[in-house]
Amino acid sequence: MTSPGSASAGNATVGLPKTLEWVGGDDGFLRLLDQTRLPRDVVFLDCRSAEQVHAAIQRLSVRGAPAIGLAGAFGVCLGAREWLERDRRDVERFLKGVDEVSDYVGGARPTAVNLVWAVRQVREAAYARRDAGVEAAWKAMLETSRRLLAEDVEICRQIGLHGADLIRDGMGVLTHCNAGALATAAHGTALSVMYAAHAAGRRFHVYADETRPLLQGARLTAFELTASGIPTTVLCDNMAGWLMSQGRVQLVIVGADRIAANGDTANKIGTYGLAVLAKHHGIPFYVAAPRSTFDRSLSDGRGIPIEQRGAHEVRGVGGSEVVAAGAEVYNPAFDVTPASLISGIITERGRVEPVTGGGIAQIFA
Amino acid sequence: MTSPGSASAGNATVGLPKTLEWVGGDDGFLRLLDQTRLPRDVVFLDCRSAEQVHAAIQRLSVRGAPAIGLAGAFGVCLGAREWLERDRRDVERFLKGVDEVSDYVGGARPTAVNLVWAVRQVREAAYARRDAGVEAAWKAMLETSRRLLAEDVEICRQIGLHGADLIRDGMGVLTHCNAGALATAAHGTALSVMYAAHAAGRRFHVYADETRPLLQGARLTAFELTASGIPTTVLCDNMAGWLMSQGRVQLVIVGADRIAANGDTANKIGTYGLAVLAKHHGIPFYVAAPRSTFDRSLSDGRGIPIEQRGAHEVRGVGGSEVVAAGAEVYNPAFDVTPASLISGIITERGRVEPVTGGGIAQIFA
Repeated sequence: MTSPGSASAGNATVGLPKTLEWVGGDDGFLRLLDQTRLPRDVVFLDCRSAEQVHAAIQRLSVRGAPAIGLAGAFGVCLGAREWLERDRRDVERFLKGVDEVSDYVGGARPTAVNLVWAVRQVREAAYARRDAGVEAAWKAMLETSRRLLAEDVEICRQIGLHGADLIRDGMGVLTHCNAGALATAAHGTALSVMYAAHAAGRRFHVYADETRPLLQGARLTAFELTASGIPTTVLCDNMAGWLMSQGRVQLVIVGADRIAANGDTANKIGTYGLAVLAKHHGIPFYVAAPRSTFDRSLSDGRGIPIEQRGAHEVRGVGGSEVVAAGAEVYNPAFDVTPASLISGIITERGRVEPVTGGGIAQIFA
Repeated sequence: MTSPGSASAGNATVGLPKTLEWVGGDDGFLRLLDQTRLPRDVVFLDCRSAEQVHAAIQRLSVRGAPAIGLAGAFGVCLGAREWLERDRRDVERFLKGVDEVSDYVGGARPTAVNLVWAVRQVREAAYARRDAGVEAAWKAMLETSRRLLAEDVEICRQIGLHGADLIRDGMGVLTHCNAGALATAAHGTALSVMYAAHAAGRRFHVYADETRPLLQGARLTAFELTASGIPTTVLCDNMAGWLMSQGRVQLVIVGADRIAANGDTANKIGTYGLAVLAKHHGIPFYVAAPRSTFDRSLSDGRGIPIEQRGAHEVRGVGGSEVVAAGAEVYNPAFDVTPASLISGIITERGRVEPVTGGGIAQIFA
């Protein structure tokens, strides 16, 4: 169903619908797989405005740091197109519109730095072409977004290749939330490592934390991995420690939403606890992420903003209210794992191992 | 609604319906609060046969080690009453029936040793009165069950008093699952400590892990504590580590399903991981349990049978299937926390602190 001019990515390699794609040419739209409906329903959201993309990011129809970044990039293009259509001659006014829509889309969620990063690439593309006029500036934005999408596919593939040797025959590999093809243009980050090891013929078993409150592990990771033929067991988050103590986990790999200059890593809530448990059991704990997930403006994890989400995500399970009305709810969407608990970070440029500020600086050299 | 002859317990002290009560005299029945329906519906199950009690225990309508024990005791009385009605003269045949129904009810769930313990008390009461005939033996069984119920109320109250000084003003106290009034005849074990501290005027905040898969923390603990006016915040299980790292938890108290002679403690799945996290953060970790939860026939926790429950508990959330069909599910109902991770055990005879085999032997002296 992809038109000739569409930019999209290779989830077909793992038997999955596309996470996101730009359908059509300059008058096209962003098609997102609505991940809130998985695994039951495969439904797409066609976004034709920045507001629709903003809402889709906020309600987690698209989620995962790299995928949020890409959706945000196309979202800015959609918002800027409205400015283009209003006035095709006043470049300064157009750029002011681009600034506005960039701030709006870039602020949809606070923790994943990829969103800010991708939006900045697109905005800068417009500024770089300001002398060529409004239409050229806008085309440069769309071109940049398409390029980021294509690059993400290759970056994720490289992450997989750089991590694959960590997985050996017979291992139990634990992961949390979904850092898979559904969190990126294709392949994923943590799961790309598993796909690469699987493609290399290694036999291993994946344990997927269900990941309350929104169950991305149960709904998305199990869906992806089983679709790819990788044996997968889902467990409740509170079972991970016991599973480790039983000798069934030899490796933990998770994704990331923002990594500070020293390697402190924000990722889905629960990651920090897993890292402590892994350390207690002597199990290697790896983070897989592209360079766009690093925020080297922060010296350590203390500066990473942690999104607090609505109580309804915890209170309501499958549509019915389970928490007594008088009780409060704690619902941070992310936590920060200190670099000292991370064995290594797997990037498209190789592994940072051990995790040090110097090692991280090198992958940007 | 309690008839004059009924044995029941004082949940009214904490504004709650009774967990379980024997309604009526010798021809009475066991009334259980159906905890699968809480907090939305307050519904009672009236059990008139051992089979009904067995089913109620298996489906967790009644849960919590002490409450399971009490339900089991009355369940054996109900089963034995059928043997009594069949033949009121043949004591040997009656005792054979008691043995049969004891094995049946005692095997409803494997981990909580209180069930085996309470059933044994009731069976032994019958044997002790064998010379007085079938009816006297059966009356002794019912009398013993009523006595166990009344004693449980007082035991739980004593546990609370022996632990209350652990809670000081301004503390954050974390608990897991439900070790409250709903898990016992009244007051609870871990929560009895909180009720006692609250009654002593201490101001503190309770954090209740929601406790997947069956959400006893969200559904039951939050319900109990807020009904008692104790400020409570519910969190997903995977948030406990981050909460600790934020300095918001000064004490962890949980219940127990079986404690070995050396202090290794089986409790709701997730307890072990919490204990590791508490140790990492230097937070005291206490277990609260009556002496009937100790199984001194086991030298350590390796011999404790861990119940594996059905995959449907994890797969289905609020009635809808969330786990991809091809994925397996891991669902142990309990884990074992080694004594080395436990700061102390709070019993009706005082605290075992530090946790050693010798200290445990002393509370049985």
